[in-house]
Amino acid sequence: MLKPERILRLEDDRVVLLDQRRLPEEEAELVCRSSAEVAEAIRTLAVRGAPAIGIAAAYGYALAAACGEDLEDAFSVLAGARPTAANLVWALREVRGAEDPAERARALHEAEVERCRQMSAHAAELLAPGSSVLTHCNTGGLATGGHGTALGAVVEGSARGLVRHVFVDETRPLLQGARLTAWELEAAGIPHTVVADAAAGYLLAGGEVDCVLVGADRIAANGDTANKIGTYPLAVVTARHCAPFYVVAPTSTIDPETATGGEIPIEERDPVEVNARFPARNPAFDVTPAELIGAIVTELGIHRAPYVESLAPAVAA
Amino acid sequence: MLKPERILRLEDDRVVLLDQRRLPEEEAELVCRSSAEVAEAIRTLAVRGAPAIGIAAAYGYALAAACGEDLEDAFSVLAGARPTAANLVWALREVRGAEDPAERARALHEAEVERCRQMSAHAAELLAPGSSVLTHCNTGGLATGGHGTALGAVVEGSARGLVRHVFVDETRPLLQGARLTAWELEAAGIPHTVVADAAAGYLLAGGEVDCVLVGADRIAANGDTANKIGTYPLAVVTARHCAPFYVVAPTSTIDPETATGGEIPIEERDPVEVNARFPARNPAFDVTPAELIGAIVTELGIHRAPYVESLAPAVAA
Repeated sequence: MLKPERILRLEDDRVVLLDQRRLPEEEAELVCRSSAEVAEAIRTLAVRGAPAIGIAAAYGYALAAACGEDLEDAFSVLAGARPTAANLVWALREVRGAEDPAERARALHEAEVERCRQMSAHAAELLAPGSSVLTHCNTGGLATGGHGTALGAVVEGSARGLVRHVFVDETRPLLQGARLTAWELEAAGIPHTVVADAAAGYLLAGGEVDCVLVGADRIAANGDTANKIGTYPLAVVTARHCAPFYVVAPTSTIDPETATGGEIPIEERDPVEVNARFPARNPAFDVTPAELIGAIVTELGIHRAPYVESLAPAVAA
Repeated sequence: MLKPERILRLEDDRVVLLDQRRLPEEEAELVCRSSAEVAEAIRTLAVRGAPAIGIAAAYGYALAAACGEDLEDAFSVLAGARPTAANLVWALREVRGAEDPAERARALHEAEVERCRQMSAHAAELLAPGSSVLTHCNTGGLATGGHGTALGAVVEGSARGLVRHVFVDETRPLLQGARLTAWELEAAGIPHTVVADAAAGYLLAGGEVDCVLVGADRIAANGDTANKIGTYPLAVVTARHCAPFYVVAPTSTIDPETATGGEIPIEERDPVEVNARFPARNPAFDVTPAELIGAIVTELGIHRAPYVESLAPAVAA
């Protein structure tokens, strides 16, 4: 398994990130020497995945504190790097009040990995023996600073002998599935197959998928979940085939201030990521209504509908 | 509009194709000097789209006749080039019995373009003024040897002032939407936006799509329709938003010998088209159940459910 400090770490005067844009071809580190450089790394997806960008932002804030930057500026530059993930502002608020931001940021990183372990153990209980799992985007160690959410559950399920195979949506336009998830599964020695995002319906219709596991970028109080573009149609077709669709995410992803999915801001990224030759649109996330989600699994356990009730204690925690 | 003979044509001792693998970067012609070379062009997608590969196969057979090849060999090599499209074998049967295969193949090409014009006129009647249309894969002149099916209907609808905008699924893995459909729409001067296939659900959920138009590679007697991978999940999510989902295809796409979609052979292509680095699967088509299809439009008119009855006269024709 990828060590947390290999994915991202805070050193005295810099934040060092495994540059996820260059995987799987190259394992290169990106060094950021200011909060602005960390924000730029988040914006350009050198580090991505809701929990991981929360940790990166916390490290960026701690770096700003160590370097004597204006901390309110640092906070707002980091908070504005990407709009959808709830963890980003959550993590920044966690470090802002701390006496020692560096220590607090490192503790937050460690705690996020520990939460991933806990939610993976809970989510693995949902897997039947011999499961063929389909996943979208990357929700592994790379996305969380270690261990992973939905992919962490896959790895845990595999360790328990429950996972037979993993289908990996390539996840256009930036191919986080084909580049990052497949790379992590290869490293973990778990059998996997990359497919075009549009092929998931074919696999479900053919009875080749027992269960769909995804992560989340923001979960509204009612359970509506924003996640990587394509998650919503995947949930719709999964429901048609009566296969379970589970969201695995830390409680830091739940945003009690957002009542429903309709209020979640959806980032539209540079169209060039989709197509450089013709006019294009590039919404990075979509919203899956709570009614399509069989369970939301956090570090606290398995939450079932109605989520407005079952998630409330998770928010309070 | 792209002239039919620019897309593909039969000359005395060769078949000349606009090489669709090289669009939109380059408008290059591919010259085939035997039926085997035509079959290879079909297999490698230098020419693709169910009606167009039917015409190409007919030209390949006529070329074989002109060159004194063994015609039964030529028939089987061409018929086996790709398994899913019904038009391929249909067109070959049309030319096999002809006294002058070249004349018959050219007449078939001309008739297919004329059928496209007719079905486009019928399909345009389904469009409300100001329609924002979403389409998948390429169903334009390139796919049919001229004019197009679903994209022909879009062009006709635009000429009638009914089409406000076209969303183009990029259509992974080979990007027929992003490369070919966008290229044809640009040439036709119709406003268009390329999106990742997985973004269609987001657009539908946001009320940005009024209607979905697709082509078909094979239509079973009951209306179940095989089309480019991703069509099925697109139909499922379209149904969820109560938007109309229409299939536009010539009667040559209807296969009366195939009772239901479950019997349609689905081509699995080289996984390298999806991913060259990790294990992958590459189903090229999926099957959309008739219940998700609001209408099937052929050159004969608009067919509604139950298709087993409404398509029967189209098959007889």
